[in-house]
Amino acid sequence: MNGNRFGRLFQVTTYGESHGEAMGVTISGCPAGLELTEENVQRDLDRRKPGQSMITTSRGEPDEVTINSGVQDGYTTGTPIGMVIQNKDAQSGKYEPFITAPRPSHGDFTYSAKFGTRNWGGGGRSSARETVNWVAGGAIAKKILAEHGVELKAHVNQIGDLRADDVTFEDIKQHSEKNEVRCADPDTAEEMRELIDEYQKEGDSIGGSIYFEARGVPRGLGAPRFDSVEARLGQAMMAVPASTAFEFGLGKEAREWAGHDRNDEWEFASESNDDSDASGDEPRAGDPKPTSNRHGGLQGGITTGEPIYGEVTLHAPTSIPKTQTTVDWETGEEKDVQVVGRHDPVLPPRGVPVVEAMLALTLVDFMLLGGRINPDRMDDQPGEYDTAYHPTRPET
Amino acid sequence: MNGNRFGRLFQVTTYGESHGEAMGVTISGCPAGLELTEENVQRDLDRRKPGQSMITTSRGEPDEVTINSGVQDGYTTGTPIGMVIQNKDAQSGKYEPFITAPRPSHGDFTYSAKFGTRNWGGGGRSSARETVNWVAGGAIAKKILAEHGVELKAHVNQIGDLRADDVTFEDIKQHSEKNEVRCADPDTAEEMRELIDEYQKEGDSIGGSIYFEARGVPRGLGAPRFDSVEARLGQAMMAVPASTAFEFGLGKEAREWAGHDRNDEWEFASESNDDSDASGDEPRAGDPKPTSNRHGGLQGGITTGEPIYGEVTLHAPTSIPKTQTTVDWETGEEKDVQVVGRHDPVLPPRGVPVVEAMLALTLVDFMLLGGRINPDRMDDQPGEYDTAYHPTRPET
Amino acid sequence: MNGNRFGRLFQVTTYGESHGEAMGVTISGCPAGLELTEENVQRDLDRRKPGQSMITTSRGEPDEVTINSGVQDGYTTGTPIGMVIQNKDAQSGKYEPFITAPRPSHGDFTYSAKFGTRNWGGGGRSSARETVNWVAGGAIAKKILAEHGVELKAHVNQIGDLRADDVTFEDIKQHSEKNEVRCADPDTAEEMRELIDEYQKEGDSIGGSIYFEARGVPRGLGAPRFDSVEARLGQAMMAVPASTAFEFGLGKEAREWAGHDRNDEWEFASESNDDSDASGDEPRAGDPKPTSNRHGGLQGGITTGEPIYGEVTLHAPTSIPKTQTTVDWETGEEKDVQVVGRHDPVLPPRGVPVVEAMLALTLVDFMLLGGRINPDRMDDQPGEYDTAYHPTRPET
Amino acid sequence: MNGNRFGRLFQVTTYGESHGEAMGVTISGCPAGLELTEENVQRDLDRRKPGQSMITTSRGEPDEVTINSGVQDGYTTGTPIGMVIQNKDAQSGKYEPFITAPRPSHGDFTYSAKFGTRNWGGGGRSSARETVNWVAGGAIAKKILAEHGVELKAHVNQIGDLRADDVTFEDIKQHSEKNEVRCADPDTAEEMRELIDEYQKEGDSIGGSIYFEARGVPRGLGAPRFDSVEARLGQAMMAVPASTAFEFGLGKEAREWAGHDRNDEWEFASESNDDSDASGDEPRAGDPKPTSNRHGGLQGGITTGEPIYGEVTLHAPTSIPKTQTTVDWETGEEKDVQVVGRHDPVLPPRGVPVVEAMLALTLVDFMLLGGRINPDRMDDQPGEYDTAYHPTRPET
Repeated sequence: MNGNRFGRLFQVTTYGESHGEAMGVTISGCPAGLELTEENVQRDLDRRKPGQSMITTSRGEPDEVTINSGVQDGYTTGTPIGMVIQNKDAQSGKYEPFITAPRPSHGDFTYSAKFGTRNWGGGGRSSARETVNWVAGGAIAKKILAEHGVELKAHVNQIGDLRADDVTFEDIKQHSEKNEVRCADPDTAEEMRELIDEYQKEGDSIGGSIYFEARGVPRGLGAPRFDSVEARLGQAMMAVPASTAFEFGLGKEAREWAGHDRNDEWEFASESNDDSDASGDEPRAGDPKPTSNRHGGLQGGITTGEPIYGEVTLHAPTSIPKTQTTVDWETGEEKDVQVVGRHDPVLPPRGVPVVEAMLALTLVDFMLLGGRINPDRMDDQPGEYDTAYHPTRPET
Repeated sequence: MNGNRFGRLFQVTTYGESHGEAMGVTISGCPAGLELTEENVQRDLDRRKPGQSMITTSRGEPDEVTINSGVQDGYTTGTPIGMVIQNKDAQSGKYEPFITAPRPSHGDFTYSAKFGTRNWGGGGRSSARETVNWVAGGAIAKKILAEHGVELKAHVNQIGDLRADDVTFEDIKQHSEKNEVRCADPDTAEEMRELIDEYQKEGDSIGGSIYFEARGVPRGLGAPRFDSVEARLGQAMMAVPASTAFEFGLGKEAREWAGHDRNDEWEFASESNDDSDASGDEPRAGDPKPTSNRHGGLQGGITTGEPIYGEVTLHAPTSIPKTQTTVDWETGEEKDVQVVGRHDPVLPPRGVPVVEAMLALTLVDFMLLGGRINPDRMDDQPGEYDTAYHPTRPET
Repeated sequence: MNGNRFGRLFQVTTYGESHGEAMGVTISGCPAGLELTEENVQRDLDRRKPGQSMITTSRGEPDEVTINSGVQDGYTTGTPIGMVIQNKDAQSGKYEPFITAPRPSHGDFTYSAKFGTRNWGGGGRSSARETVNWVAGGAIAKKILAEHGVELKAHVNQIGDLRADDVTFEDIKQHSEKNEVRCADPDTAEEMRELIDEYQKEGDSIGGSIYFEARGVPRGLGAPRFDSVEARLGQAMMAVPASTAFEFGLGKEAREWAGHDRNDEWEFASESNDDSDASGDEPRAGDPKPTSNRHGGLQGGITTGEPIYGEVTLHAPTSIPKTQTTVDWETGEEKDVQVVGRHDPVLPPRGVPVVEAMLALTLVDFMLLGGRINPDRMDDQPGEYDTAYHPTRPET
Repeated sequence: MNGNRFGRLFQVTTYGESHGEAMGVTISGCPAGLELTEENVQRDLDRRKPGQSMITTSRGEPDEVTINSGVQDGYTTGTPIGMVIQNKDAQSGKYEPFITAPRPSHGDFTYSAKFGTRNWGGGGRSSARETVNWVAGGAIAKKILAEHGVELKAHVNQIGDLRADDVTFEDIKQHSEKNEVRCADPDTAEEMRELIDEYQKEGDSIGGSIYFEARGVPRGLGAPRFDSVEARLGQAMMAVPASTAFEFGLGKEAREWAGHDRNDEWEFASESNDDSDASGDEPRAGDPKPTSNRHGGLQGGITTGEPIYGEVTLHAPTSIPKTQTTVDWETGEEKDVQVVGRHDPVLPPRGVPVVEAMLALTLVDFMLLGGRINPDRMDDQPGEYDTAYHPTRPET
């Protein structure tokens, strides 16, 4: 409604502006009994944080998270988890030229027009700095999912016209965090790195995209229609700053496929599916199972148990040193501007943990709505509430 | 939450299965004083209805709407509007072969797995028949928008690999309803028609896409972040049956654009903008105005006042006469199936009013949330509540 | 939000005005596999319907429900259930005198002031006729609850200054439906009946209250704070037309109790609690159990497993034949009015099924949120989704 | 949903447990341009804070608020306002005896049963400490309301059987903050003070109630039915810790009134109503106006413009030094407990700002929903968005 809340049973509510005091996120709906420390959250924050490499902004934010509530003696209590990340390196001064002269393709003008004012120091609420909250919330969602057999990962599959398509889920897990671009194909990553450098040297920036995949999601999740899994993912991914396209399964390409070629036929799952690692929801030998997964894990808005995968396009960063024209509504004059400062020349590398966070937040919500996670506590099956009331207690 | 509600201040809540008694939709949040008849709604239902042409299913549904509440003496009363559309030509019998043998790429299996049962006669709730409710609700949204200066329209811009790009908003309004394909370029429409015929003859189907555009949307609408205009549109459009991709502005292509090329610079609106038809929210002479609209009318999640445009991809219909393989979970055997019946060989032509409906529902919601529409009545400015309490009354 | 929706996971969305075409209600979130017929719903509608006795309005509404969707072959399908109840005996004519002259203490003026218009034929949306929708939805909620061991019942415990306090839950179940007043104490019921007659003869009306109780609600339901069980019940019961007070446990009286007297101490549940009928959530021998239930089944906003009970006060009907003064805003003159027509002289007797419905709707929602009911289907435990996909099928 | 959010367009989302790191509240939906400092919020926090007098707990919490976002240069920016209040004087140790032995009538057992654990140091999330967040949010709501002509105030109208009825709104404003009990009648306040002392000396506690009133609320606010003003107030007030009854207008007493006596007749507002201070929504000379206000400002769920008033009952504090019996579920033994610590002997005096906060939060939400407050900014009328985009800027 008001734009700072996401989720239905597992909700994140956020606040913070890029040059304010602090960023903050409240998690509602996290079951009790999840082992959780600030380090668990910090790990993902570090993947998103500025200053990781030469292709990210040099803003010096340690992005250290403090958990204010909802955790006791290392376990969640089932009550809301409040987290705060202080803004340490806000430098508002350099934004003064833009107070009344909107940077091209930023939210400067729309915010001013909407609110009659804006936090002029940096992007305010429209800054991607907000995503630090998402990543913090997503880290908790991921941890819950992991304990329920769901694994998810994203990587950068395109920068400019350079594309990395032939990668497996295993590749993504193995390779994507090993290069600055976060691309699972090391060779393409190298080329992407060079392309980014070129744009950066010219004072320009370039777009790209992120591929995501989730495995182990049980079948039967998702409510038909407005809240189908793809609809909720659509909202989640289009909320990512700079996102201009969302696809799942064959995505945009599907328009060129004939029905007979695209349809996934059915077979019975073979013995090999019946491995001991499988969660209870995975198809067992003799269960119907699609022969392929062009449907991206979703049919009729509901999960089939196959991997859920898709892609998000992020346009080039709008803050560039290259000269552009704008107007100053106070002086009434046109003027040339250069957005010099600490900006990323490309967004997908730092966007990877953001996309993973939104995917995790969306999926944990569906798991709760589908009754696959006990809403009250991690360590019990739903329905077995009657034996345990074992508060954590101090060590003696 | 439960998948049958869309919108925040202007809400549609729907029910109905393709082979049940009736479809129904409840509209909440429609201001009082809107002139409204069943004919206003019927017009759009007729654009969506089956049996319009050779390239749509021949199911014989008149799709006649009955308004049960919320309208008196031809005007809305401000209370919920309940509408019902009877299902007249349901033929469940031909679906019997599929009761325990899921049609490839349908929701048959996921519904059964989720609910342990399903409305086996046709697609049930996952059928695109549900969109009759959306179109009914969208017709009311469009009418409100029109009275507030917002105009919107969609057309089919691609079928298979045939694309119609060079069309203006005026073309769309003039030409798209004049051919069965609903493409604004008559020549391409003709080619598309032929391509569809080819697939249909082979017992196959083909995908395509729909372009949409809205004009006159005031600037300053939309809440930053999770409920940004693009995020809400993302949910709306990914909810459309068979949708696999959503884009706005440059969309997926943006990944290949440099920042300097993509950014829209600012100029001052010239005199020519100051025309008398402009709504109060349009830029006036001397107002900042982007020199181009690669941002698709949205910056920082908020409207700029420029046209909002984007694209939705719909995969090929999954119901095809061509032979496919599936399994029967009762007999435990594989079998060949042919989905013969009354099915569309292509979805975009009938999807046009559906996409328009979702666009209208999304925008009217933002107009209400942004205070641009009086939530209580059409005929007054907000704040001027003190003079009028003029109930409609019977003619004497 | 818009006032016509109640519930979070189990939602009712309603429409209808007292003198419109029809009333309608959509149920979202009902699990699949619930045996359900129109008769199940009709039974409660008949308890609420007008013309039952001399102390209810004589408006001749059969209140026959039609189920339009969500049920197949006698079982729910898990998809939204749409129900419609036609208005058959609307007589708008007699409301003409009040079009511009508001009846005292009705919503006539507030509706006109808010919407600039109103459905002038009767109370429109503010009419208690709307509660027919609630009772229809509540009947389904009750059925689900019953299959999960929750039983609930209400009765009239006060009319004017006549009070029936010494009744047990068993009394309520046995006696309350056996007299027109729906009071569980037959002697008091008789007195109440006489009191009502007196007011009715004078062209006047009288207030009263309803006591409600639910048994078998498992402990551990309810989220702390804004959505505590008492907060949600507070909303539910204050939404009942003519409701002016809501209490639970000791209610208003609690203000005069000392802490030591009011507090419920703890003991261990004895063997006798360990009966085989107990649901899994009831305290077993050796479980902590409160020695009394002055807390009305709720502590810290969460259920204790003890009976939930409380009381709702309904003011006297505002429609009375006795002469009252109002103003006509068209003529600018004061005038005397008599609201002659078909009106109840007292509300609680017909309010009993309404209060039960709101109680049931609230509780089923908490059961779903607390993971005590499988959100997808009735016949399975959550987590056991992998074996059954057994669509209903036609008899052969 | 998850219990830590209240409001629809103006939302508070809270976190914090009585013995955790900090309490926190996020405000969404506050328009830009509201002058706001931490002092504005602190003023109300000081009214609620512990240690104010001999009849409040001696826990030493300064309750100092920090605003982390949403305010720049002394004005709100329209983006979420994040506030944090550190817990400074948490003393968990003294709660150790109760870790596995629930205090009578506390949430100790229900929390443990629900979550399988709990924050055992103090009341955790069920502690009234949470209301510090509500008061912080309510302070902002009050400030917005004040700028739109709405004034509200509460006072303690009953402690035990001592009642203060004959007080005016002016009395409440003048006298209630001048005594420790916060009762507007100084003589009764004195008696109440003595009564509280008596209970405190005995190691016991006592209940009471709070009367609230709001003036200047424009007519025509509120959506019919489930979200009627009284329904939303019912939820708001029943969420207040220890609340067991909510009433408005005649409240519970209404059950004994005849319709003719209770109904409020209509007259035309006289000249004297037409004073220059009146907001645009107040009745002007010649407008229909009720001759009395037994309806408590609400008819058909919608405001009439008359004062909104009602009452909330709070039971006696459950933490008392007097000996009580409980069980220890670890040892399996019954035992006597004394809840010695820092506890209030009575709740209403500190509850007054809490009730005011919930009233303010509820009303500001209705004002926004009813279009009476510009959702985007304080200084403009809705619809006049086109002239101003004047970001705040640094002083030079």
